[in-house]
Amino acid sequence: MATQRLTIDNIRPEVRDAQYAVRGELATKAEAYRERLEQGDKSLPFDKIIFANIGNPQQLDQKPITFFRQVLSLLEYPALLEKEDVLQSAFGYKQDVIDRARTLLKAVQTVGAYSHSQGAPHIRDSVARFIQERDGFATDPKNLFLTGGASSGVSTLLNVICANKSSGVLVPIPQYPLYTATLSLLNAHCVPYYLEENKAWGTDVNDIRDSVTNAKRNGIDVRAIVVINPGNPTGASLSPNDIKDVIDLAVEENLVIMADEVYQTNVFIGEFTSFKKRLGQLQQEFPGKYDKVELASLHSVSKGMVGECGHRGGYFELVNFDPEVQAQIYKYVSIMLCPSVIGQCLVELMVNPPKEGEPSYELYSQEYNGIKDGLKSRANALYDAFKTMAGVECQEPQGAMYLFPTITLPPKAVLAAGSAGKKPDEFYCLALLDATGICVVPGSGFGQKEGTLHFRTTFLAPGTDWVQRITKFHAEFMEKYR
Amino acid sequence: MATQRLTIDNIRPEVRDAQYAVRGELATKAEAYRERLEQGDKSLPFDKIIFANIGNPQQLDQKPITFFRQVLSLLEYPALLEKEDVLQSAFGYKQDVIDRARTLLKAVQTVGAYSHSQGAPHIRDSVARFIQERDGFATDPKNLFLTGGASSGVSTLLNVICANKSSGVLVPIPQYPLYTATLSLLNAHCVPYYLEENKAWGTDVNDIRDSVTNAKRNGIDVRAIVVINPGNPTGASLSPNDIKDVIDLAVEENLVIMADEVYQTNVFIGEFTSFKKRLGQLQQEFPGKYDKVELASLHSVSKGMVGECGHRGGYFELVNFDPEVQAQIYKYVSIMLCPSVIGQCLVELMVNPPKEGEPSYELYSQEYNGIKDGLKSRANALYDAFKTMAGVECQEPQGAMYLFPTITLPPKAVLAAGSAGKKPDEFYCLALLDATGICVVPGSGFGQKEGTLHFRTTFLAPGTDWVQRITKFHAEFMEKYR
Repeated sequence: MATQRLTIDNIRPEVRDAQYAVRGELATKAEAYRERLEQGDKSLPFDKIIFANIGNPQQLDQKPITFFRQVLSLLEYPALLEKEDVLQSAFGYKQDVIDRARTLLKAVQTVGAYSHSQGAPHIRDSVARFIQERDGFATDPKNLFLTGGASSGVSTLLNVICANKSSGVLVPIPQYPLYTATLSLLNAHCVPYYLEENKAWGTDVNDIRDSVTNAKRNGIDVRAIVVINPGNPTGASLSPNDIKDVIDLAVEENLVIMADEVYQTNVFIGEFTSFKKRLGQLQQEFPGKYDKVELASLHSVSKGMVGECGHRGGYFELVNFDPEVQAQIYKYVSIMLCPSVIGQCLVELMVNPPKEGEPSYELYSQEYNGIKDGLKSRANALYDAFKTMAGVECQEPQGAMYLFPTITLPPKAVLAAGSAGKKPDEFYCLALLDATGICVVPGSGFGQKEGTLHFRTTFLAPGTDWVQRITKFHAEFMEKYR
Repeated sequence: MATQRLTIDNIRPEVRDAQYAVRGELATKAEAYRERLEQGDKSLPFDKIIFANIGNPQQLDQKPITFFRQVLSLLEYPALLEKEDVLQSAFGYKQDVIDRARTLLKAVQTVGAYSHSQGAPHIRDSVARFIQERDGFATDPKNLFLTGGASSGVSTLLNVICANKSSGVLVPIPQYPLYTATLSLLNAHCVPYYLEENKAWGTDVNDIRDSVTNAKRNGIDVRAIVVINPGNPTGASLSPNDIKDVIDLAVEENLVIMADEVYQTNVFIGEFTSFKKRLGQLQQEFPGKYDKVELASLHSVSKGMVGECGHRGGYFELVNFDPEVQAQIYKYVSIMLCPSVIGQCLVELMVNPPKEGEPSYELYSQEYNGIKDGLKSRANALYDAFKTMAGVECQEPQGAMYLFPTITLPPKAVLAAGSAGKKPDEFYCLALLDATGICVVPGSGFGQKEGTLHFRTTFLAPGTDWVQRITKFHAEFMEKYR
């Protein structure tokens, strides 16, 4: 008789040791509560789960944009195009919906076939035009790789960048745990640099430089810097000056820049500036100096006003990469054949939405702005609630989909957490879930400065009832452990 | 000024060293020809490219199944469901299409939201019922993981199974190069075992045992065996006895079995038996002996009569895996959040198609059988052509989507290949592409016994013109190097 071949002790240790808090213990417990509620369990002190642990807009009421979905429906069943008049009269499909579907079908032939591993050429052309218009600098479609969401792009890039166990990548703390998890899987070093909470979670380049120096002293070959802009979990948007500082540091320390720009349209304060644009400006301003800066920037259909997480679409652009390295990236992605073709088409729709004067424009912009305004007012409502809560401090919402408040817990709560074998922020978040059905993620899942506690919550959930539940829970929790 | 940070010499060596021939030099050259043709280049000796290098049915004329695509169109734009009567009268959507769309929408809420990382629970329930009906043995949906095509499932499993550089996995030769590529990426050993061409590419368990013995002697920790059934690139289907032999070997050598069963419906000769079914039978027959055999079996929407490669849907089932290991697999897949939700829905449709008596059944079975018969007759037409070609020997088509003929090339051709810096089979396939626009993959991309030469071609392309072009090219090539 055979014995168990794979055990927790003999599987790949890099997999075992990777941490991914967004779908960790809390999310699993929340899912179990959800199942109980679905099965009619009335014993819980709440009647629904609010998944505020993950930026999943359409799970929380955000409606898909009509233009996008109308086109996708035609791509899935092109026979609908045989009766344009019925589509228009009965279902309100405008002419630009129909035309776009025809154009995309011509480009991909069918959404049921594998495409080019980098993504369908026509779609990459469209993305290139979008970047060019956004930034004012040329973009070559050959440098674009369509991906199954930004996550798979990050994974691809880190797989190529990290050569061995002495390789290190600078990651902001707090960060989105995809980065640390992927570096764990590759047995490479996460070289943390801390964002400055009291400066609206800004980036301090001197702090980054210190991190590099320390890492080098420990024999780490620091190869790249990750910047999440606008920030996750912090929401902070970098100014053009901040970006220049990072690019200068990259020149100085010879680092590849990975710019995670998936929240580029989720900006409430100031304006988004892409790394590509800033780099282009610097190249013009200082000829020669910036010509070798290797930049990979990522975008996605999952966030923004698109919010189409389930479609797994995204792309990254490579700037100044060695063509031989780029060929290796192509080979690497080709092993998985291609990203979802319907997801690729959605990328095309995101970067090339209806324009003013086109039939679908009015509805599109109404929906787009409605979502944007809704997110801003939800963020502010939550922020206002945090301001009233004792022991909670929160930076003003700037963008992305999250708030990341500091919580100061009474010593008794910290003791109780220790007795329960939990970190204090985990303990707090578990208590919140048990009392309210609201699932958030402890700050320890993203990294936080020693001695500080936070949690990350999305502000995607509609209504104010859930905000009141947090406020009420918090008061009771603080009272209990006073 | 910065210098190039990433070069071919300092990126991850495992990535650099991985080989993936299906989208290698030949495919790249074919793509360049395609672009030239598209741009109106008339200087080539052919007017279209036949991509016979990859099992991509819908690129080559296979039509999607109407029921599937009608449901998907409704999932993309649920507002269509507000006018059922118009859907029915104008577009021929039957009631079961509408009902299924409603059921799936209820299950996933929206295809725009992330699902559970293992896949939406309702869809896993459906897959579990399918496996149970197919095999007659219980299936727990908790053991199912929906994936973005089978490729990503293979990658996940090998990432967990291969602990370090002494880990090895038995892989059939010839094989689908995903396996060797992924093992290269993990810096683990491919332990080859050769299929027997003269026994219709059958599996010889003694040969496998020898491979294990040799590998162990070299310090390799052999952990798993990959079986592709029906075979890729060979098309061979394993008999229940062959499967028992492999399972017995797994018990004897304490191996995890990875059964790649994506071609389970592409069977022309005999009948498909799943590893899960055979294992279940053996467990009943010999109580205790097989209770610890760890089996992972994979399936996909890309092949079969579904042929929906572009939708990136699939699943794997784990049997007898340690729950702690399974939890690690869950954590690993959760880092990428979830597979495409529309792809998941297509998995549901594949495993739960219209049944006899239901409104869409007639059209569904007509389409399904039409594709199946078409594939068989194309396979046979190509096989018949190969039989007439000097120096070409081919096993009778049994299944999958490929033929893998042996070619015996004249010494002068082998010399010419050497002068061109190519392997002889590569040289032959490049010449075929240059002369005919037909892209196939050299046998060396899949592995072949020392001293033998092959190529793999799909038999998906319609018509007989392309077959005649191969025959004509071959005669000229043989004449040229006589």
